Amino acid sequence: MSVSEQIQFPLPESAIPTHWVNLLADLPGEPLPPLHPATKEPLGPDDLAPLFPMALIGQEVSAEPEIEIPDEVRDVYRLWRPTPLLRARRLERALDTPAHIYYKYEGVSPAGSHKPNTAVAQAYFNRQEGVRKLATETGAGQWGSALALACQLFGLECEVFMVGVSYDQKPYRRAMIEAWGGTVHRSPSELTEAGRSQGEHDSGSLGIAISEAVEVAAGSEDTNYTLGSVLNHVCLHQTVIGQEAIAQLELAGEYPDVVVGCVGGGSNFAGIAYPFLRANLRDGKSTRFVAAEPSACPTLTRGVYRYDFGDTVGLTPLMPMYTLGHDFVPPPVHAGGLRYHGDAPSLCALVKEGLVEPRAIHQTSAFEAAIRFARTEGIIPGPEPAHALRAAFDEAEAAREADEERVILIGLSGHGHFDMSAYEAFLGGELTDLEFSQAEMDAAIERLPEAPVPG
Amino acid sequence: MSVSEQIQFPLPESAIPTHWVNLLADLPGEPLPPLHPATKEPLGPDDLAPLFPMALIGQEVSAEPEIEIPDEVRDVYRLWRPTPLLRARRLERALDTPAHIYYKYEGVSPAGSHKPNTAVAQAYFNRQEGVRKLATETGAGQWGSALALACQLFGLECEVFMVGVSYDQKPYRRAMIEAWGGTVHRSPSELTEAGRSQGEHDSGSLGIAISEAVEVAAGSEDTNYTLGSVLNHVCLHQTVIGQEAIAQLELAGEYPDVVVGCVGGGSNFAGIAYPFLRANLRDGKSTRFVAAEPSACPTLTRGVYRYDFGDTVGLTPLMPMYTLGHDFVPPPVHAGGLRYHGDAPSLCALVKEGLVEPRAIHQTSAFEAAIRFARTEGIIPGPEPAHALRAAFDEAEAAREADEERVILIGLSGHGHFDMSAYEAFLGGELTDLEFSQAEMDAAIERLPEAPVPG
Repeated sequence: MSVSEQIQFPLPESAIPTHWVNLLADLPGEPLPPLHPATKEPLGPDDLAPLFPMALIGQEVSAEPEIEIPDEVRDVYRLWRPTPLLRARRLERALDTPAHIYYKYEGVSPAGSHKPNTAVAQAYFNRQEGVRKLATETGAGQWGSALALACQLFGLECEVFMVGVSYDQKPYRRAMIEAWGGTVHRSPSELTEAGRSQGEHDSGSLGIAISEAVEVAAGSEDTNYTLGSVLNHVCLHQTVIGQEAIAQLELAGEYPDVVVGCVGGGSNFAGIAYPFLRANLRDGKSTRFVAAEPSACPTLTRGVYRYDFGDTVGLTPLMPMYTLGHDFVPPPVHAGGLRYHGDAPSLCALVKEGLVEPRAIHQTSAFEAAIRFARTEGIIPGPEPAHALRAAFDEAEAAREADEERVILIGLSGHGHFDMSAYEAFLGGELTDLEFSQAEMDAAIERLPEAPVPG
Repeated sequence: MSVSEQIQFPLPESAIPTHWVNLLADLPGEPLPPLHPATKEPLGPDDLAPLFPMALIGQEVSAEPEIEIPDEVRDVYRLWRPTPLLRARRLERALDTPAHIYYKYEGVSPAGSHKPNTAVAQAYFNRQEGVRKLATETGAGQWGSALALACQLFGLECEVFMVGVSYDQKPYRRAMIEAWGGTVHRSPSELTEAGRSQGEHDSGSLGIAISEAVEVAAGSEDTNYTLGSVLNHVCLHQTVIGQEAIAQLELAGEYPDVVVGCVGGGSNFAGIAYPFLRANLRDGKSTRFVAAEPSACPTLTRGVYRYDFGDTVGLTPLMPMYTLGHDFVPPPVHAGGLRYHGDAPSLCALVKEGLVEPRAIHQTSAFEAAIRFARTEGIIPGPEPAHALRAAFDEAEAAREADEERVILIGLSGHGHFDMSAYEAFLGGELTDLEFSQAEMDAAIERLPEAPVPG
């Protein structure tokens, strides 16, 4: 079998990256600072100290281009990293495209997604500073399960506030958190002030679950808070994905013309894209970057670029980002991991500069692409990366029309084993495209907090 | 990182085996033939022709030591093979054992288990002989989903009769079959004589589902029947697992003192063990082999060695095997894939000769081992390989008592993502050990068919 016919490009475990890529160091100008929610002044490290360990606060504002990965973290990464990069030859034939399509698959992690890449790092740095317990929120359960695993491996307790409606509808993700030794509470709970105050809002929301986890962390000396996306240090930890992909594509003798990933809070997209973006900025490469988001929650394509809260209640710092308004409640699309009103400030800045192209995808066309992928490449993708697949198929179609052998790299962030009810709904013709309301958006903008408008 | 600290032993795709290992060719003496269910005479190829393609019938009785894997089958294997072999260093430390524990993980296949190894081969050979559709039964859904995927990749239709109670309780596996383009019927169905005859037995059984699938295949010119375990050609196709493990352990500079696998119908066990068994027979190696089965369905440890039917109704040929009686209904243990009254004749012969040691495992102790594995190695195992883990832990304990650096290889046949309700029950203290009744066994023996007693 010649190299040109290969579909797998395996790396030895010695090829697991030794550093994370901090793209911020390569961007021109100073990044806009987060602002204190009350004073609207730039946030200092001390403001974050009750919630995060100093090492992560340092990473959050670091100007170093690379940050070393501790041996203890790489030692855990070895359980599933390097993750596979495959060439999708069957898919290429099915799409009748001259494009070379590659996918980097994070679904082989124990939790089935990219989330453990940062969960492990966050658990490690908290442990290093003597923290005994981590509190967090989870929507569909991907982040909560990843953090439970990471806490177990580093001997930390893990307390997860799970959005009520998911807690009731997704008992399997809940059981996964418990199998890894985590404690799960249905949110809103009776355990916190924030939870007790909710009264009739019994089904919960990510915003309320965040408030509960923050309250638990802030109220205890040896408990910290963790977040699964959005923040700089979270995006940073995910860059192992793109770095491995560069090495694997080199084995294949290729370099991507376009990199496609889905965006919820932005950490998955950062993971696959930022190492390639650095190559654009440093080495004059001209890769394009496509960020796929749901049409029903179109933060990057329809939101406004403003300072806004990270949570619904308004407890978090103000961040400069595209936002649909902190109190926007996305419709119940099945890609639970993509239902967020804002996005990582670093990614938003890249979109604003025109370095990343956002693309809004309807969920039925995402599932259509997912089924096609499953029937050619075998893997049943999660509903979130299904959005990236749809965008990649459009790129493959464009390559066919241009009759060009373009190289497309897809970030396939996780499998869909816990989302089969969504597939059932799609195959049964019960899935609809939930529309975004511009009127609702306009009203949400009116409710944005008073703050400087980012330049 | 020195080789001695490695945990992964990745092979390039070029290392996917080119041949399947037919252990029968190396066993002393002639294998006992299956018998016609009516005449009790040895079965000829013509008897099987209505159900199977000639290529598979040939493999079923082949005396060749190796059978070439067609390029088209290897081409599909490349989507997930070679599968990972990892050294379980975290587990070793947790067990405080001098043993070196390795696991070969088949959960990375698109269906999450070893089943696609044979599904792909069976779909290919059927397609080669002009078959248009494959019919099969499935219990928990692992086999049905694997066959749906394989049929999709080779352009065949796939019709799955799913045991009624599983159809109702496991909609996610059902959705998986449909995502890959298969058709699923709740069994007993109205589509077959066998189904319609069931009347009040509405919850169904594997035996009834087999009868329905066989009836559909026998009644149609262009439809064949497929089985996911037990038969020689099925065990044969799984030997890619053990062959890869040999190559990977060689990279690690090791050779197993003991190989441990779980047994339902026997094909998973054959897959990991037969290539090593051949090395015992040919090259004077002295590896031990431990076959783990549920205490509630103790075919190899408590059954009798006799000719018996493969199904409940008595439509299949009589096979020489350990059996609990063809009408034995195993209690509802959560390892759905291990609930079978008999076992592969080839494996039974090896147990009879003392070449394989059977071990009965209670399900609570299997889940206890699974949780320990999940909390050290990350992977949440299926309830079936959890039985193998328990047996392997006992081997590790023995190595500690003997203070010997024994090498233990575990066949980890699949993940537990679709079995989280079983974990929930275990963690909630609701799982009990279902007892096997000797009285029931004695009565079942009385109902065995009249046939020669195998020597």
